[in-house]
Amino acid sequence: MRIDEIGGEFGLIERVKDYHAGSGGNGLVLSIGDDAAVVSLNSYEQAVVTTDMLIERIHFRRDWSDPYSIGWKAAAVNLSDIAAMGATPTFAFLSLALTPKETVENVDRLYDGFMDCLNRYGARLAGGDTNVSPDYMVISVTQMGVIRANRALTRTGARIGDMILVTGNLGDSAAALALLNEYGLGKAEKIDKDLINSHRRPQPRVIAARAAAATGKVHAAMDISDGVVGDVRKMCAASGVGARLESVEVPISNALKNAAGILQRDPVTIALAGGEDYELLLAVAPSDVDDVIAAVGEVGTSVKPIGEIVKTGLRIMAANAIDELNPDALGWDHFGK
Amino acid sequence: MRIDEIGGEFGLIERVKDYHAGSGGNGLVLSIGDDAAVVSLNSYEQAVVTTDMLIERIHFRRDWSDPYSIGWKAAAVNLSDIAAMGATPTFAFLSLALTPKETVENVDRLYDGFMDCLNRYGARLAGGDTNVSPDYMVISVTQMGVIRANRALTRTGARIGDMILVTGNLGDSAAALALLNEYGLGKAEKIDKDLINSHRRPQPRVIAARAAAATGKVHAAMDISDGVVGDVRKMCAASGVGARLESVEVPISNALKNAAGILQRDPVTIALAGGEDYELLLAVAPSDVDDVIAAVGEVGTSVKPIGEIVKTGLRIMAANAIDELNPDALGWDHFGK
Repeated sequence: MRIDEIGGEFGLIERVKDYHAGSGGNGLVLSIGDDAAVVSLNSYEQAVVTTDMLIERIHFRRDWSDPYSIGWKAAAVNLSDIAAMGATPTFAFLSLALTPKETVENVDRLYDGFMDCLNRYGARLAGGDTNVSPDYMVISVTQMGVIRANRALTRTGARIGDMILVTGNLGDSAAALALLNEYGLGKAEKIDKDLINSHRRPQPRVIAARAAAATGKVHAAMDISDGVVGDVRKMCAASGVGARLESVEVPISNALKNAAGILQRDPVTIALAGGEDYELLLAVAPSDVDDVIAAVGEVGTSVKPIGEIVKTGLRIMAANAIDELNPDALGWDHFGK
Repeated sequence: MRIDEIGGEFGLIERVKDYHAGSGGNGLVLSIGDDAAVVSLNSYEQAVVTTDMLIERIHFRRDWSDPYSIGWKAAAVNLSDIAAMGATPTFAFLSLALTPKETVENVDRLYDGFMDCLNRYGARLAGGDTNVSPDYMVISVTQMGVIRANRALTRTGARIGDMILVTGNLGDSAAALALLNEYGLGKAEKIDKDLINSHRRPQPRVIAARAAAATGKVHAAMDISDGVVGDVRKMCAASGVGARLESVEVPISNALKNAAGILQRDPVTIALAGGEDYELLLAVAPSDVDDVIAAVGEVGTSVKPIGEIVKTGLRIMAANAIDELNPDALGWDHFGK
């Protein structure tokens, strides 16, 4: 049976889940199923560990993204997982597989981008591996972080009645990708270079997540990497609850509206299906929402409610607040494509 | 400039070294340049972290190695790095990039092999990542371990006059690879299936390394993954010393002798150039050699001297103990091929 016949990446994750050690006991506080694993360090601190691979042609294209941006993104997507746990990034490990024809100048620029992103968020490069790859570049990063014992934000704590909050704007990265697909690099950059760069060099919400975590009022958190609808579904599954999203509340940028106009697509649908937003998804009790908004706002990041946690199911109200959108049509999976 | 023009993999490692955080300070005890990084956990324990990628066509071939063996090897090569530090393996993170055509049965068997190897050495799977790869399989593993503070075995402590010890036999894996190259899987397995399996399913020296470390008498250690000559050269560079190896002392198996006969090659040369031995290389003061041999022997592993640490240079005495072999002709580099 082929992987695409068992539901692609998510079917595969489900299948291999049981190989993983159970959470709890022997120093493993949290295993597979969240943004990162949590490991005991001592009585007052825990380590958070995540690992993410970026593969040329799947996660990036050399004709659309320069080596500096590829390096930046490899760091950013891993730091985003550390952020989603509310942790402080510490050590990174960078493994590269390069074709024999790769130039050292490209490798230098890739490291520059990787290091600039690490430095911005206080992480350091502690090790890695270099290899040859026959035909395309593969980057694998392991990022560690640290957090006070039992303070890690997880996906499992969302409660019925919680508000669902997101940081920043959604859909910018997806719109950039659509422009690149439709028009190629040159024209896409002419339309909106900043938007294209938001796709190539995402900003992990490390600072905002720590501010949110410090309120002690976040019930559940994860980063939005596979589109907000798909990720809300994951948080609901982990917490054993449902959700109702209000399309009209989804924060979208003017850049997205403009790009959607050019693409003749609905900006809200782009934002909901999204992908690679690297914003935060939070579940917070209604009475605490103002405190979380204030704390995250203090470090310069916007955060707003887009729906609420309900008992079961996933409903997405259309912009008219009457019709419903089909959540199965919104989301993505690399194997399913 | 292409990577193969700056000396391949080792030139590349040299070039990117400066991006890494310095050892010492802020919890990073040991950075790039050894088998694994060392990170402070608390006043009495340190974490050891290593990461290694295995790439189809470069590190394994699907027609020579079954999915179970590929999974086993992915765990083993990382555990070997943890072993080389004298540490106890704890948590593993497994990232897989699979082609869309991969079968779930193959993935199951790969996990079975990975888990069997982890279980044998007391490690547990704590997380990972699954991805699509356009054309060939890529496996990236990060393995953590734990060790008493300041007891990690490193490459830097070899002293002039130390004996150079190796565990087990050298060259079996290289001979197996040569048989596979020359005769293909079917005939190679008919010649010596155990030898072929020693290449496909290496046994990391986790137990032997801990026994050696527990003596407190090992000055320097590393695992032998790129051939003993190349790895002695690395240990010497890290320790600022030289070495003299006695070919006649290099431990070789009857299986290697037999295979070398069939291949019409010199078994000692195969053992010296080697590659993927995953044995241990130790530097020990002459007066302590017997103690280390006894301690490692107690856990069922042979270990013996093959040379000594000298002030400078790398000399390899031929089997007649008069001629010298050229060390530059013995060793390997994926980019250089």
